Order: sequence, then C-alpha cells, then structure tokens
Amino acid sequence: MASGTLDFYYEFASPYSYLAATRITALAELADVQVAWKPFLLGPIFAGQGYTTSPFNTYPLKGAHMWRDLDRLAVQARLPPVTKPDPFPANGLLAARLAVYLNDACRPSFTRAVFYAEFAQGRDISDRETLRQILAGLGHFYGDVIAEAEQQENKDRLRHQTEEAKQRGIFGAPSFVTADGDLFWGNDRLEMALDHARSLARAA
Amino acid sequence: MASGTLDFYYEFASPYSYLAATRITALAELADVQVAWKPFLLGPIFAGQGYTTSPFNTYPLKGAHMWRDLDRLAVQARLPPVTKPDPFPANGLLAARLAVYLNDACRPSFTRAVFYAEFAQGRDISDRETLRQILAGLGHFYGDVIAEAEQQENKDRLRHQTEEAKQRGIFGAPSFVTADGDLFWGNDRLEMALDHARSLARAA
Repeated sequence: MASGTLDFYYEFASPYSYLAATRITALAELADVQVAWKPFLLGPIFAGQGYTTSPFNTYPLKGAHMWRDLDRLAVQARLPPVTKPDPFPANGLLAARLAVYLNDACRPSFTRAVFYAEFAQGRDISDRETLRQILAGLGHFYGDVIAEAEQQENKDRLRHQTEEAKQRGIFGAPSFVTADGDLFWGNDRLEMALDHARSLARAA
Repeated sequence: MASGTLDFYYEFASPYSYLAATRITALAELADVQVAWKPFLLGPIFAGQGYTTSPFNTYPLKGAHMWRDLDRLAVQARLPPVTKPDPFPANGLLAARLAVYLNDACRPSFTRAVFYAEFAQGRDISDRETLRQILAGLGHFYGDVIAEAEQQENKDRLRHQTEEAKQRGIFGAPSFVTADGDLFWGNDRLEMALDHARSLARAA
C-alpha cells in the first residue's frame, strides 16, 4: 500500500505554524504520510486580502486570546512557555529563504530550530547572527548557505512557493493540502488532514 | 466532590456555535460539568471591533474554507450536511430573545432545535413561523412565549447578557468561560474548557 502525501505550508511568523511543526513528524509517521515542508510568506497573501498586519494585531481581543491559547496548548504539548516576538509578527523572510534553499532532509530540523528560537527562546529570527547560529548548530556551513539562499534564483523559489500557496486558496498558516487539493487550515486540523491523506492513499 | 461549571456563550448566526451545541451536553456530562447556556449577540461586539459583517464574509477565502471545514466536521460528527443560511449570517435576534426568555431546563433543547432548523434544514430562523413551529414542537405555548420574549424587560436581559460577554473579553462564538474567568474561544476548544472546569472543581 502506498504512503499518503501531505503538503505542509507554514510561515515563520505564525505561532500556530510552530505548534504544527512540533507535532507533524510523529503524527505523519503514525499515519504513514509523507510530508512536504513548504515555507511561504503570508505578507503578500494578507496584503491581497486587505490586511496590513497580523489579524491578531488588528483585533486586540483575538490577539490576547491567542497568546493565552498558546500558553495552554504549550502546557498540553509539554513545550516551554510561548514567548511573544517583539515586534510581532517577526520578519521571517531570510529564515524562509533559507528553509526553501535547504534540501528536503534538512528543512524540517532547520524549521523546528527556527521556530524554537523564536517562540520558546524569544530570539529574533530576522537577525542574521541568530540564523547563523541555528545553521551552525545543525552542522551547516552557514556563510555559504546564507549567500546562496540570497541568490535571485532562490528568492524566486520562495516567491513561486508563495504564489503556489495563493493559487491553492491558502489564506493563513499553517495550512495543509492533500493530493486531491483539499485544504485544511490551522494547527487544529492537522489530524484531520493526515486522516484524509491516509484515506486517499488507501483508496488509490 | 463538587461539579465543575462552565458558561457557554453562543450566537445563533454562528455555525461553529451549532456544532458546539450538538456536542456540549454529552461531553459535559462525562466531565461532570454543569453548563450555563448563554445566548448573546455578536453584532454589537463585532461593530465595536470594526467588523461590519461576519469575518467569513469579509474574507472570502476564509469563508470558503469554513463551509468546507463544516462539511468535514459534520461527516465526522454524523450530522446532516451543513446548509448555508441565505442571507448569511442569519438574523438570530428573535431566536436569542426566546432562548434568553426560556428557563434553564428548556433553553438547551430550544437552542439545539433552532440551530438544527438553520444549519441542517436550511430554514430561516428570523422567520416567526419557523420559531413558532420550533416552540410548538417542544411543547411550548408559542404565542405567549413570543409575546413575553418581546417585552422590554426580556429584551434587556439579552442586552445585559451581550454586555456581560463583552466585559468578559468575548470577541467571537462559541466561547466558553470557566469559574476563574478563563476564556476559551471556538468549538475546537470545548474539550479544553471542560477539562479546565473539571480541574477547578477538583482543586476547590
């Protein structure tokens, strides 16, 4: 029986993307689903919808609930308390370029390390030194990696991936897309997306 | 050991409030939590946040995902397909006044019947005849009930309950508030709210 597949679209500024990134590997293995990790940028997508910043900033009560909710989810998942980036949302452009540049085997661990630095350690992920340390900690030659991630060709890869997300109807992060194009929005829908990916593989 | 308590704030226009209303009774019984059913109006709260209609209308992609998400959740919960009220959001003012007017023993079954008419049968819950039929089906003398629900005193009760929701930081529906004032937003957080309500009762 073939494994299922699932596209995992995430944005480094998004705290619920962080939670999904901490959960998806183990859950996907249980479901026998192969995950494609797809960093993208919400900024251009939000701009097209008329948002100028995170909805969690635009609606302060919704924002306050989000940080409370994240605290509770972190306790449940046995993660450290969630730290709020200052400013929020953080600028995850370079981190996303790096994640796109790294190969499929390296992308998940780099992604988790960036999210952890941001939301568990309160570090500034737009800071090049933070990213250098993360890359070095994962065994990468960070100088080369950053330089190559900033080549036009790689910048375009991130732009294309963001455009692809938009074409697939994605409007927030994290989002999951199954092989039949069905879209599942939010960390809370990860299990449902995996179930559907698994059903498609079984039916094939 | 004392039972836990949970305030359940719902809005008749809200499809996720419908789902919560179908789930809360059985889950609360398992958790030994007493639920106070509290209809309120999102309109005045949204207006204060700068929304002029449902966010699911303002952001069409988010709206499209919501209806797809509701379809999938309905399958999971073995409910009939979810019907989209036309217009959406429906005007639930009279239904909310009736729910506030009915006593605690009658409010849950009336609430579920209204939600079912709206989201499973595609009926217009702003229509007085729909509400009369629902009341009659539940054994109420609908003429008296509607007349009394429209008395100023009862209108004020709904207004006060909406004001109370606002004071407690509620910005969407459904919302759950535990005895310590902790706020849980969304049908997806019902289990977590019940767990917390239960913990508070055990710690007391």
